[in-house]
Amino acid sequence: MALIVQKFGGTSVGNPQKIKAVAERVLSYSRQGHQMVVVLSAMSGETNRFVDLAHQMQVLPDPREMDVLLSSGEQVTVSLFAMAVKEAGFDAISMLGDQVKIVTDNMHTRARIKHIDSDGIKKELDAGKIVVVAGFQGVTESGDITTLGRGGSDTTAVALAAALKADQCEIFTDVEGVYTTDPNMCATAKKIDKITYDEMLELASLGAKVLDIRSVSFAKRYNVPLHVRSTFTDTEGTWVVEEDKSMESNPVSGVTYNKNEARITISKVPDTPGMATKIFNPISEQGIVVDMIIQNTRDGELTDMTFTVPRTDYTKTMSIMEKVAKEIGAEGVTGSKNIVKVSIVGVGMRNHTGIASTMFKVLSDEGINILMISTSEIKVSCVIDEKYTELAVRALHSAFGLDQEKA
Amino acid sequence: MALIVQKFGGTSVGNPQKIKAVAERVLSYSRQGHQMVVVLSAMSGETNRFVDLAHQMQVLPDPREMDVLLSSGEQVTVSLFAMAVKEAGFDAISMLGDQVKIVTDNMHTRARIKHIDSDGIKKELDAGKIVVVAGFQGVTESGDITTLGRGGSDTTAVALAAALKADQCEIFTDVEGVYTTDPNMCATAKKIDKITYDEMLELASLGAKVLDIRSVSFAKRYNVPLHVRSTFTDTEGTWVVEEDKSMESNPVSGVTYNKNEARITISKVPDTPGMATKIFNPISEQGIVVDMIIQNTRDGELTDMTFTVPRTDYTKTMSIMEKVAKEIGAEGVTGSKNIVKVSIVGVGMRNHTGIASTMFKVLSDEGINILMISTSEIKVSCVIDEKYTELAVRALHSAFGLDQEKA
Repeated sequence: MALIVQKFGGTSVGNPQKIKAVAERVLSYSRQGHQMVVVLSAMSGETNRFVDLAHQMQVLPDPREMDVLLSSGEQVTVSLFAMAVKEAGFDAISMLGDQVKIVTDNMHTRARIKHIDSDGIKKELDAGKIVVVAGFQGVTESGDITTLGRGGSDTTAVALAAALKADQCEIFTDVEGVYTTDPNMCATAKKIDKITYDEMLELASLGAKVLDIRSVSFAKRYNVPLHVRSTFTDTEGTWVVEEDKSMESNPVSGVTYNKNEARITISKVPDTPGMATKIFNPISEQGIVVDMIIQNTRDGELTDMTFTVPRTDYTKTMSIMEKVAKEIGAEGVTGSKNIVKVSIVGVGMRNHTGIASTMFKVLSDEGINILMISTSEIKVSCVIDEKYTELAVRALHSAFGLDQEKA
Repeated sequence: MALIVQKFGGTSVGNPQKIKAVAERVLSYSRQGHQMVVVLSAMSGETNRFVDLAHQMQVLPDPREMDVLLSSGEQVTVSLFAMAVKEAGFDAISMLGDQVKIVTDNMHTRARIKHIDSDGIKKELDAGKIVVVAGFQGVTESGDITTLGRGGSDTTAVALAAALKADQCEIFTDVEGVYTTDPNMCATAKKIDKITYDEMLELASLGAKVLDIRSVSFAKRYNVPLHVRSTFTDTEGTWVVEEDKSMESNPVSGVTYNKNEARITISKVPDTPGMATKIFNPISEQGIVVDMIIQNTRDGELTDMTFTVPRTDYTKTMSIMEKVAKEIGAEGVTGSKNIVKVSIVGVGMRNHTGIASTMFKVLSDEGINILMISTSEIKVSCVIDEKYTELAVRALHSAFGLDQEKA
């Protein structure tokens, strides 16, 4: 008998029929004697409907009230789900964020979990109930409702699994797991059976959308085995786990890309101390996150500074930089939104040499010019012209042996 | 500066435009310096939608989960309302039943309020905020969400007004107040300016739908001045208050009727002790509420027993009675669903003689046969054939001077 936490997203509980189907799936575990905690999102579409209503009320909806509004969505799915389980003859109880006591800080609409009181859930599990927890929501010490922001229900599930010391945490989604690369871009993409937390963190931060980075880092910190799998099939998905020896056979586990990138170059910057601060302070003050930074010494006392920002912040950043360039006496600012960051990720990289050079050669053999490079212990990222995205992804996927059937 | 509690029902907050309009109305009081507590229902239609969803899950939806589901409706309106107030430049905060701490018993879907913690609301009022409270909902001592059943938001408003020692409690509805009789039935019906709690209680229990009986009895117990008025106009409505001298000028304040009545007669019942128990126990065991009871001695040792039940329970009661009649050796059971109870109500009745006989004479002059009579200190009710409803109501309304313009 295991204690299992399962999370189902909005499309999995999008209407009464789907809720019943998910309830049946959960019940098949209960009937095997497992203790089940189910974390649910709001029905798909509800969050958008609420956001739309809020914007009809207030140009910039108040974050505290937004959380009261949004959290009502999961309240609907958990109560309906509990009813479905009871109709099937099994006992269940719904619990909201404040009923569990998922205590968060008071950063409304993007709160962080501080601690979870697992006693209430344990009591209900021991009483033989399926516990149905509203995902995405928490409560502050002073009793205000909060929500956890993007990927919030995944975070709820992983945090509950950690607090309950669950045997596993299953994230049900509309894909079959984590793939070696985007299957829509590369027909030979393969589902990964097992991946480490660190690799998953890199993939998530480099553009893979299947899991939110916060839930993965939570899982890593508390060593919660994560199973990402499909709501619509019974096949095993991808296990996200701690590294073990067997996992280093292939130096590269996956190829990913991120198109939400833009590149900006500020040229002929006087090479004096404090220049980087003068350039990047005004950007970070606007809440814009700079990703890669490269500095090329040009001639003697002048340098070119190149960096990337999210494409959605490109126009804003350009206008800030044009002002900055004048102030610091740089020659000018150029930029491009038509770039992509392509990355290879793998813990095996640590024990293999020449992985980065292989990547550069593969791209060069395809006639792709590398604009920027960034590396970490387990990843290499290259910024290239956006039009080469598919070509680069397919070539790298093949070159690192990811399109071969597993032995 | 007064502390005012205002309650708006589902049709008043049925869409974003209506919510904004109600917010403007409340703000007009705030701008005069009043402290405002606003109690809201769910948007009209939402409760039916939830009930429908619940029945798709479970034949008899679990009451605890039903309350979790239903209470999400007010959560939506209070948060949107608070946003609308904030957009208008005033401060506001929403509070759910468990945030206020409206503590109830654990009778889900029809819970009773045990006590209210008013400190939280007072703190927010003193901080200059409009406090927007979710109506209809409470929380048990152990933290489960409850709902208060029919008329629940009115009850929330009155209970809050009592707990806060508010100067007044205004119930906004889709009619202009309490009328001397149903304006749809009698064109000369007049809005009543002032009515006593006791009269309102009688009117509510005798068929008037404008206020729920629970909220009126709460208002009476805590002496909360109630103002029933229209959401859509600025005219004064009806004040429901403690009795004062001025109110006894007219012996009759209103004429009301209730068509949800059915009459059953069990004839030739042996007149021995314990017969009433044998007849009425099986009915009350089925949760059926008996209203009027009349016993006529027929000849010596046999009596006829006639009583009324809600028309919706008629068929069930008839089948119970046919069984009972056999058991006790009565002759048989007859009944009719085509009856109506017409009532006159007025505290002035206590100081006037002959009110009941006037009523009987008015009905008799119109050729209406009285089937049953019931009286209390401030009301007289007559059961008559349903087809005479309009005729009886209009004749009584006129006979007691209710269609005359006030001086």
